[in-house]
Amino acid sequence: MMIVRDVQQLRAALASRRRAPGTGIEKKVGFVPTMGYLHEGHASLMRAAREQSDIVVLSIFVNPIQFGPGEDFESYPRDEERDAAVARREGVDILFIPTVEVMYPQPTRTKIRVSGLTDRLCGASRPGHFDGVTTVVAKLFNMVQPDYAFFGMKDAQQVAVLQQMVTDLNINVQIVPCPIVREHDGLALSSRNVYLSEEEREQALVLSRSLREAHEGISQGQMATVGELRSFLEAGITSVPLARIDYVEILTFPSLQPLKAEERLDDIKEDVIAALAVFFGKTRLIDNMRLEKAEVLSHV
Amino acid sequence: MMIVRDVQQLRAALASRRRAPGTGIEKKVGFVPTMGYLHEGHASLMRAAREQSDIVVLSIFVNPIQFGPGEDFESYPRDEERDAAVARREGVDILFIPTVEVMYPQPTRTKIRVSGLTDRLCGASRPGHFDGVTTVVAKLFNMVQPDYAFFGMKDAQQVAVLQQMVTDLNINVQIVPCPIVREHDGLALSSRNVYLSEEEREQALVLSRSLREAHEGISQGQMATVGELRSFLEAGITSVPLARIDYVEILTFPSLQPLKAEERLDDIKEDVIAALAVFFGKTRLIDNMRLEKAEVLSHV
Repeated sequence: MMIVRDVQQLRAALASRRRAPGTGIEKKVGFVPTMGYLHEGHASLMRAAREQSDIVVLSIFVNPIQFGPGEDFESYPRDEERDAAVARREGVDILFIPTVEVMYPQPTRTKIRVSGLTDRLCGASRPGHFDGVTTVVAKLFNMVQPDYAFFGMKDAQQVAVLQQMVTDLNINVQIVPCPIVREHDGLALSSRNVYLSEEEREQALVLSRSLREAHEGISQGQMATVGELRSFLEAGITSVPLARIDYVEILTFPSLQPLKAEERLDDIKEDVIAALAVFFGKTRLIDNMRLEKAEVLSHV
Repeated sequence: MMIVRDVQQLRAALASRRRAPGTGIEKKVGFVPTMGYLHEGHASLMRAAREQSDIVVLSIFVNPIQFGPGEDFESYPRDEERDAAVARREGVDILFIPTVEVMYPQPTRTKIRVSGLTDRLCGASRPGHFDGVTTVVAKLFNMVQPDYAFFGMKDAQQVAVLQQMVTDLNINVQIVPCPIVREHDGLALSSRNVYLSEEEREQALVLSRSLREAHEGISQGQMATVGELRSFLEAGITSVPLARIDYVEILTFPSLQPLKAEERLDDIKEDVIAALAVFFGKTRLIDNMRLEKAEVLSHV
């Protein structure tokens, strides 16, 4: 595994590996952009990339422009040495670790904005967040020029927003969404889980539990409408004392259109996503469940 | 010359030409994005591209999202057959002529915005114009993936804005600015010149004449400050009855920072641009003169 820290090195490392010598055949590049402090969720993305691509590039960059004032940019957990070990173990070929100065040598005047999809969910709670995400991901795409890019479905809105950007701007990359990875007890993996106290960690299980129970409830015909699903989730979450709801939203996916409370889940023509953001102390956790159209129809 | 009309055809045509067979050496692609109705200004860009690149791509697309309401999107002059003949004559390899549906198969939710540089000059007169330009040029860059892209200095602000975008987003292309091409009598070439009546055409010469005289005046030490230069230009332009000034601006280039009236031209550390936008009837013409730092110093 090669570790590179600036853009020229990265481009040169890719150029020399991309072309299979003699054959003229171009190898496929799989890219996993992360903010580091890697966990099994990231590892699953690297494995998907390893399986689907000839060359695997992992980037680690805590991107200041996607954090709002008062958010955890400064304190976001970092551990380069451990991250490099994980990347090596998962067969990453090129690990790109730029500094803020490498990514933003001058204050950036250029922003990419995806409207519509970004004004709900985390976009509403974190104004400007997704402009920072789309801008940095476009920069990384322009540096790596990958064939495939792998993102976890825990950040479902991020997947929807990036897919929209890639389509709208004709970026020549295939976005590959990968399933949420959970601890054995159900907690969705997140680098921010380290912030949780033991008690918060225990109570945070309510997120995955509520989603799982909602899924069962839908399959068993115990709830039929958007409003019933939302109420069920809200009731579940507020049953634990430390949970403070940021949002509980039922939307179409990937278009993220809001749904009326009285709409029946089986009348909706698109996939549906139930998305949660909940504070435990100062730590904001997200989780979600996607109800695929076929699934809703077969269960209800 | 191959004419292609959709994105897959374009990518395929480029892929097959880019690799020199057997050698593994990648050919350089030069790109000239235009709105068509080609004139000698465009031809000079194609010649620069021909000289500097192995493969020359020309695009013709009248981009609706860079026109404001009430502007001339519908009436913008178009002549595909003549344009194709010009492109063929200038040695273009691939002519890309997409429809609006090819460029925007769904309403675009993604906009690229370069702040700071776009709120003056044409950006102030034409709100949203440069968001449309940067967005469509990024799309075209993602389709063509050129090594070089050629733009005329008549749209000096466009050159500055696109250079900023390319730097900020790490787009792997070199922007090549090319000199303004003029008629024998000095009028800067523009597809919009066809809108002018004979009388307007005659009076529009005031733009290039005022810039030329200003240049002489500076060399001869007849004006020293930003304010004097601006007044000289305004007096020249308003001396013809049909001219209606949109703006006369003296700014740094390429950072497009405003300058105080009392600033001495020879004290300014950057290149300076004098930029004009003037209506003749309904037709808005632009022209400009760049005073390179070395030039100002040597003359004053």
